[in-house]
Amino acid sequence: MKEYTHEYLEHIRGIIERRDEDAARAELADLHPADIAELYQELDLEEAEFLYKLLDDDLAADVLMELDEDDRRKLLSNMPAEEIAKQFIDHLDTDDAVDIIQELDEEDRDKILSHIDDVEQAGDIIDLLKYDEDTAGGLMGTEMIVVNENWSMPECIRQMRMQAEDMDEVYYVYVVDNDDRLKGTLPLKKLITHPSVSKIKHVMEDDPVAVKADTPIDEVALDFEKYDLVAMPVVDSIGRLLGRITVDDVMDQVRDSNERDYQLASGLTHDVESDDKLFAQTKARLPWLLIGMIGGLCNSFILGKFEGGFVVDPTLALFIPLIGGTGGNVGTQSSAIVVQGLANGSLDIKKSTQQLLKELGVGLLNGGIIALLVFIYNYFTIGHGHEVTTFAVSISLFCVVMFASVFGTFVPLTLEKLKIDPALATGPFISITNDIIGMLIYMSISSWLIIALH
Amino acid sequence: MKEYTHEYLEHIRGIIERRDEDAARAELADLHPADIAELYQELDLEEAEFLYKLLDDDLAADVLMELDEDDRRKLLSNMPAEEIAKQFIDHLDTDDAVDIIQELDEEDRDKILSHIDDVEQAGDIIDLLKYDEDTAGGLMGTEMIVVNENWSMPECIRQMRMQAEDMDEVYYVYVVDNDDRLKGTLPLKKLITHPSVSKIKHVMEDDPVAVKADTPIDEVALDFEKYDLVAMPVVDSIGRLLGRITVDDVMDQVRDSNERDYQLASGLTHDVESDDKLFAQTKARLPWLLIGMIGGLCNSFILGKFEGGFVVDPTLALFIPLIGGTGGNVGTQSSAIVVQGLANGSLDIKKSTQQLLKELGVGLLNGGIIALLVFIYNYFTIGHGHEVTTFAVSISLFCVVMFASVFGTFVPLTLEKLKIDPALATGPFISITNDIIGMLIYMSISSWLIIALH
Repeated sequence: MKEYTHEYLEHIRGIIERRDEDAARAELADLHPADIAELYQELDLEEAEFLYKLLDDDLAADVLMELDEDDRRKLLSNMPAEEIAKQFIDHLDTDDAVDIIQELDEEDRDKILSHIDDVEQAGDIIDLLKYDEDTAGGLMGTEMIVVNENWSMPECIRQMRMQAEDMDEVYYVYVVDNDDRLKGTLPLKKLITHPSVSKIKHVMEDDPVAVKADTPIDEVALDFEKYDLVAMPVVDSIGRLLGRITVDDVMDQVRDSNERDYQLASGLTHDVESDDKLFAQTKARLPWLLIGMIGGLCNSFILGKFEGGFVVDPTLALFIPLIGGTGGNVGTQSSAIVVQGLANGSLDIKKSTQQLLKELGVGLLNGGIIALLVFIYNYFTIGHGHEVTTFAVSISLFCVVMFASVFGTFVPLTLEKLKIDPALATGPFISITNDIIGMLIYMSISSWLIIALH
Repeated sequence: MKEYTHEYLEHIRGIIERRDEDAARAELADLHPADIAELYQELDLEEAEFLYKLLDDDLAADVLMELDEDDRRKLLSNMPAEEIAKQFIDHLDTDDAVDIIQELDEEDRDKILSHIDDVEQAGDIIDLLKYDEDTAGGLMGTEMIVVNENWSMPECIRQMRMQAEDMDEVYYVYVVDNDDRLKGTLPLKKLITHPSVSKIKHVMEDDPVAVKADTPIDEVALDFEKYDLVAMPVVDSIGRLLGRITVDDVMDQVRDSNERDYQLASGLTHDVESDDKLFAQTKARLPWLLIGMIGGLCNSFILGKFEGGFVVDPTLALFIPLIGGTGGNVGTQSSAIVVQGLANGSLDIKKSTQQLLKELGVGLLNGGIIALLVFIYNYFTIGHGHEVTTFAVSISLFCVVMFASVFGTFVPLTLEKLKIDPALATGPFISITNDIIGMLIYMSISSWLIIALH
């Protein structure tokens, strides 16, 4: 991880102020595109633009890809479509180009596409734009080395030399038959170990792991992890090779989806970052707080209906936080287990009933233990003269834990079945709901006990 | 993602029952090691062992790596050390071998190490075992292709052919000087594009991204993502090449650490999975519930000290869930933002004060809005005759939100400074603490208002 010291930034700012292009070029020469992007984010827009103009087109395009979406939009908003097409899109892989074009308005897209010099690349980009962003097709690029299974190794190497010229990195060579159907992959080490084989198909690896273009990204990511891949070919429904997905894009997707799950579990709505501005942060956090507020007011309404009960035994009020908190905690645990299981593939939606039954068991155990411990505590502290409270609290705790276990499991499983993100049911949503249900259970049981015991 | 249908499993079970080795071998031949591992997990231990014995040693070792830790331990526990060494360790990359050996008892380790045929491999494993598991050194393997910067391309290819023979996949060739210091990398496409260059150093990529062996894994993962790498070289403090880390191991680490953060935020202690047994699940969940229970009992104690206040105005009791819940929600958000920022590198521990000040601002805004809305609600509902409650609730809400924002930020930042996992401070911990503090604030302000207004 590069860390820019205050001194280094001052040094760079000095160079920019002197407009010393040679010194600036020398500084940039040693930096990776990702480091240049990071440097830009430390500078003012004007300073950054001075440095940006010094980059050659290939490097400028790479740096563009590494910028935050907001910074990229700022930079592109001042540029005419033709310049964007010639300076960036022409120099990017198709999958990166599609990502950038997707961030633009409909109108700008067409303008930019019409300015791309390389008709083949423009056609590929138009094809790629048709795929859903959340599928393998939306993540793939078309830059890859493809050879025919019947070619000899020297013939392959000749072809590969031509095809590889424009590519950053090559990890796999894909082998197809005469109808463009994917037949295998050729690990690059075979170029070294089998330099003169007569037909590629004799040394290629058969049955390559491949995905169809409409496979959801989550599944693609699980396949990458399971099979330890660095790239994966994408095929159409009859097995013809369409493109390839690279592991760096998959890692970005995995991080994004994990962050999203984490944010939902923590009551954050937007894609919020610790370095966001004050208002962005407030906007990302206020909605859940307001829902929590409404939940809290619902609870005050429920408790208000029961005010008479508190007059009979005011100690009933003391255990409100315990009942509500326990319901919230249990529900959060149950829903998190479901969300995580669905995300890492260890939980199968077809086994919903089994999971619900298991949760019932966990709820029985946990609810029983907690209810008993609290009963013993209350018996020895307030027990005498507060039988209603002592019994109501423990019976309610048991019921609340049972309910919250099953409910916390049921809701995300149902969302998943309805093709809605199950992570929406975690965190504040489930804990607020369980808090309210907990109050209803507690108040009902208390009322019933007051009538029964008096 | 491979899914084994019921029919397919029955088909396989039939083959195993008939002890039909040829048919079984034919079924296994088309499967990836990860798929074989998955198949094993669907079968009984005895059935799995029948299939396992049919695999050749290389494949058996790969399948072993893909099994769950529990299944692997079961399989290895019945095998003598010599067999483990010869059948598995000899056929694994050093990084995988180290992972397996680390799962065993101290005593078994030495026995197995003494049975490894290849002395060089045994030496590498012993060296690797010295590194901390959570550092680059603990994740690296020693299998890589290394060439000297002064060699010509044909000389390199000759050497690479020898070195590559035993390796599964080759993505990079590392270039060193005469003192074994890492000087660059040679992308494999250069073999194709520059077949006859006189010195490798003329075509290698300079200044490769590399990490020192003691770099924490989190930083290594961020570097992989930032620089879009599929492998990274590891060097010692004077830049000599020690080994390499591959992207699949990094992805596993990233998933593990995300799952851990998610579990801590959701109140799960162990590494719990939805397919764990009932007791494992209970064990993973009960501790937090018990802490929540103690928190709830603390609250009942605090509220008990204040019973007189509820007699003055029983409506005070109605807002207990609102105050506690709001404090919990705000604290969870604040701590989650810090944990996520530290994990993805967007938050720098050096900017703690800045982050705390920003949280103070967010707290002011959110607290002000919520306190005002609740004030308006209470004014029009219970307002008349319940001035103490109306004022106490809104003033407390404001104070609780302010406190929870700052406290939720402060605790994980402090843990990070103390080199303790900041994720420990998320979820139930922060929400229970804020619940208690919230009650203290609410009760204090109410008491003060009762005295002031009566």
